[in-house]
Amino acid sequence: MIKRYLPILAWLPHYTPRLLGSDLIAGVIVTIMVIPQSLAYAILAGLPAVVGLYASLLPAVVYAMLGTSRSLAVGPVAIIALMTGAALSRVAVPGSDEYLAAALVLSLLSGLMLAAMGFLRLGFFANFLSHPVIGGFLSASGLLIAISQLSHILGIEAGGYTALALVDSLAHNLANSHWPTMLVGLGSLTFLYVVRGFGARALAALHVPEGLASMLVRAGPVIAVLATTLISWRFDLAASGVATVGMIPAGLPGLTLPVLDLSLWHTLLVPALLISVVGFVESISMAQMLAAKRRDRIAPNQELLGLGGANIAAAFSAGMPVTGGLSRTVINHESGAQTPLAGLFAAIGIGIVTLAFTPLLEHLPIATLAATITVAILTLVDIPLLRQTWRYSRSDFSALAVTMAMTLIEGVEAGIISGVVLSIGLFLYRTSRPHSAIVGRIPGTEHFRSVTRHDVETVSHLALLRIDESLYFANARYLEDTVYSLVASRPELSDVVLICSAVNLIDASALESLDAINARLKDSRVTLHLAEVKGPVMDRLKLSDFLDDLTGRAFLSTYAAWSELHRQRN
Amino acid sequence: MIKRYLPILAWLPHYTPRLLGSDLIAGVIVTIMVIPQSLAYAILAGLPAVVGLYASLLPAVVYAMLGTSRSLAVGPVAIIALMTGAALSRVAVPGSDEYLAAALVLSLLSGLMLAAMGFLRLGFFANFLSHPVIGGFLSASGLLIAISQLSHILGIEAGGYTALALVDSLAHNLANSHWPTMLVGLGSLTFLYVVRGFGARALAALHVPEGLASMLVRAGPVIAVLATTLISWRFDLAASGVATVGMIPAGLPGLTLPVLDLSLWHTLLVPALLISVVGFVESISMAQMLAAKRRDRIAPNQELLGLGGANIAAAFSAGMPVTGGLSRTVINHESGAQTPLAGLFAAIGIGIVTLAFTPLLEHLPIATLAATITVAILTLVDIPLLRQTWRYSRSDFSALAVTMAMTLIEGVEAGIISGVVLSIGLFLYRTSRPHSAIVGRIPGTEHFRSVTRHDVETVSHLALLRIDESLYFANARYLEDTVYSLVASRPELSDVVLICSAVNLIDASALESLDAINARLKDSRVTLHLAEVKGPVMDRLKLSDFLDDLTGRAFLSTYAAWSELHRQRN
Repeated sequence: MIKRYLPILAWLPHYTPRLLGSDLIAGVIVTIMVIPQSLAYAILAGLPAVVGLYASLLPAVVYAMLGTSRSLAVGPVAIIALMTGAALSRVAVPGSDEYLAAALVLSLLSGLMLAAMGFLRLGFFANFLSHPVIGGFLSASGLLIAISQLSHILGIEAGGYTALALVDSLAHNLANSHWPTMLVGLGSLTFLYVVRGFGARALAALHVPEGLASMLVRAGPVIAVLATTLISWRFDLAASGVATVGMIPAGLPGLTLPVLDLSLWHTLLVPALLISVVGFVESISMAQMLAAKRRDRIAPNQELLGLGGANIAAAFSAGMPVTGGLSRTVINHESGAQTPLAGLFAAIGIGIVTLAFTPLLEHLPIATLAATITVAILTLVDIPLLRQTWRYSRSDFSALAVTMAMTLIEGVEAGIISGVVLSIGLFLYRTSRPHSAIVGRIPGTEHFRSVTRHDVETVSHLALLRIDESLYFANARYLEDTVYSLVASRPELSDVVLICSAVNLIDASALESLDAINARLKDSRVTLHLAEVKGPVMDRLKLSDFLDDLTGRAFLSTYAAWSELHRQRN
Repeated sequence: MIKRYLPILAWLPHYTPRLLGSDLIAGVIVTIMVIPQSLAYAILAGLPAVVGLYASLLPAVVYAMLGTSRSLAVGPVAIIALMTGAALSRVAVPGSDEYLAAALVLSLLSGLMLAAMGFLRLGFFANFLSHPVIGGFLSASGLLIAISQLSHILGIEAGGYTALALVDSLAHNLANSHWPTMLVGLGSLTFLYVVRGFGARALAALHVPEGLASMLVRAGPVIAVLATTLISWRFDLAASGVATVGMIPAGLPGLTLPVLDLSLWHTLLVPALLISVVGFVESISMAQMLAAKRRDRIAPNQELLGLGGANIAAAFSAGMPVTGGLSRTVINHESGAQTPLAGLFAAIGIGIVTLAFTPLLEHLPIATLAATITVAILTLVDIPLLRQTWRYSRSDFSALAVTMAMTLIEGVEAGIISGVVLSIGLFLYRTSRPHSAIVGRIPGTEHFRSVTRHDVETVSHLALLRIDESLYFANARYLEDTVYSLVASRPELSDVVLICSAVNLIDASALESLDAINARLKDSRVTLHLAEVKGPVMDRLKLSDFLDDLTGRAFLSTYAAWSELHRQRN
């Protein structure tokens, strides 16, 4: 039982030195690679850079104990940082103590929600985010983040969490661009683009093995960080006005207690829920993909507990909301991580850096970090997805387009909510008109087929209506409509048979509609029968009075109904 | 084309003197019967009694021209009056000019929404209100209305639109009960209960024909109104403090213009939407039931236009939100109404009363009206429905219980919204786990059945997975899960066939999941095949790249897949 909630107990006893070796190497590589992005995402959320490091420590340790994915790496990620910034900037001024305190509350709320969803096995909630909604949301968020980073790259002041606000403040301050910052920012941007675009090919031409080449390309941001930090230190760029990370207090984070301010909790409830669900979707998609590569399995509800624990840990260790990140997970996986211990080792590595080496980060220009975010994030803008979705289904495309437009115009929360509402609405609309067909008998057989597509035998007083969907509240009235127009259009009808071979469920609304159909057909002196009702559906019908009131019979097969009713009147 | 939007043009040319006779009689009866309830519902909504008369005039005329139901009678109804009062009391003080003005805005908004839904053919929106939600809402509203009328019956001050507020203010003022009012109120209540409970039986014992007996029982409220008005006039009860309807300005309503106050419009938007949908559901249910009795048809989208027109008319003639009412429609139908002209005649009748006979209503005690509402409304409290729903389905029952509890505790709007959200959530949850089965071949045949229920032939390297539901975003991930755990549990697998005979739709999310399954199975060196894909689904798949990337083939039948893949490796 305890093993179910603490997966580490299941695998740690079987740990081997060989696994230890792989995990240690992965841990060291991840430590070096994720420090720049951890700093950058904290800044994106409007928090001090060091918060990004803190959020990569305890949360990763907690996830290592609770998580089921072998290679998921937990820490600050871009989208969640953007959502965090959007939520916090509504309740406090970036840079203020209240802002920091609100970040802890947001982490705690999100952690509690994730854990609760895990205990209640509500992982399926994430399914309400359809792929078009996620795709539209990620593309729009990527654009938003890229635009927001432009101000850091150009060295001007700009803020906001909607495209309009960002572009507006950028346009107003463009004239004040700070050229030394621009030099660093655009320089890093160009370097990173070249490495990403041509690095792999160049290294292949130099006969560098593929795995190493891929790691070197991924190390691009680290190289940019090292180079610009050196330049910034050597030429004291901070003195010429280039924004740098600055002094980071050395040492591990102390214990922090999220404030118990009910009105603040209330305001952050919806953002925390959205952050939880989006974070879970990002994390679980990565974890499932990598698990499948190893023919391995992850447990979604246990993952919720793992991410919940990680966020609660962030709340108590001066952190920010975290989740399993795309890029840090890929690095972890490609560096050969074998168990969650790799994440633990990376956390120890980052802990050592936080303890002793933060002075090395002092001169790192913010513009370099902005450039690394921009290059990473623009891969989220998925133009082919737009084209494919448009071609495949207009209804899915509308969900994507609305999510994207609302995210850009109204912000991340409005975007995701309207996308979800629209896709649920479209789905309900589609199922609210179940396919049905009047069928007739293929002469000489016991088979029945649609009268519109086949040359079949029919009888004028008897209608055989096959329903091709489960019956529930959204289509119950449509069923009534179908039957009533059938009866209204064929005054000679005396018997209607509903063939229920494809009906997996009849909910209370559909039952009332069947009751109503039965009663109204009775008023018009038409008898209602059922045929081919599935076992579980019939068991449930027996709990109601419907079968007692039914004017006709429930036949086992359509053929039985046909033989009986056909013979009766002809 | 114009006939489609003005159904009156279709039937008026065929109007006969015989129809005129029936409609005239029905019009006269309805006039007499609905005057008390029209006054009562206006008071329930916190409006002057005369507004109820005004709302029975022009709206009924407009509906007669636009509606498709032969016997629907449009005017103020109890539930809509309750919702109107709840909405208006949040924006203005009952009795104030602002309150009256807001009632016009609410009618206009509701009318515009109904008309827009009609033009956009969005009648299916009403389907989102499942039967358990409607049942729970009506029961709770009935209770709320009955409690609210107690104050009029006891002659004390009490107000509010939640059970808590009502009971609280009743309890505080109980000691101030006004005994002459109580005498009238409880006297009427007792009389009405006796008539309703025993009237039919007593009249049957006296050999009164059934139809006439039923009309006489329904006339109970009219008799109570006449009797108490006479008593009130004779003994001048108003002087002893019994609240009466009082002076009603004689004459037809003038043209009123709803104010264009944007913040007021914005506040009333959600209430107007809920009033529209609830009103439409009440109206369409009645109309459909009566149309079916005559093997007749109504057009739901045209009904939306009819009700929309009626509400817009109410907004411009000093009215209040209206819809097709349960009791007034039954009276109209049972009085023999043949066409919508019966409604027009009733409107003319009420118009004549409003013009010339309002002094007769001056002494009518409010307590009598409260008693008639109470008796009528308590029939909405449907205890058997609770029991039946509990027995039939716990999931439907939970939707009913939540709607009821929220309506009583938080009010009508919170009740209906939470009910809708919960029932949609429960439905999505149910379909998010589609039934699927591993099938095998019934030896010697081309038939395939579930391996758990039948003794079938299987091959260890081949899995045939039949999916019994359309694939869409809410179950796409579940499908991935199913396939991955299948592959993880059978390491010897080399081929997986998805049998899609019951798949009517594959949305973009499910397509991505299929893509992902294909790619991940490829990573694990398992080939993915499809079988029995339906025509329209296949057409759509051809618009995507999925079929090109598919590692295996799309077989026409399961048997074809079996023969091919079975032979290949064995």
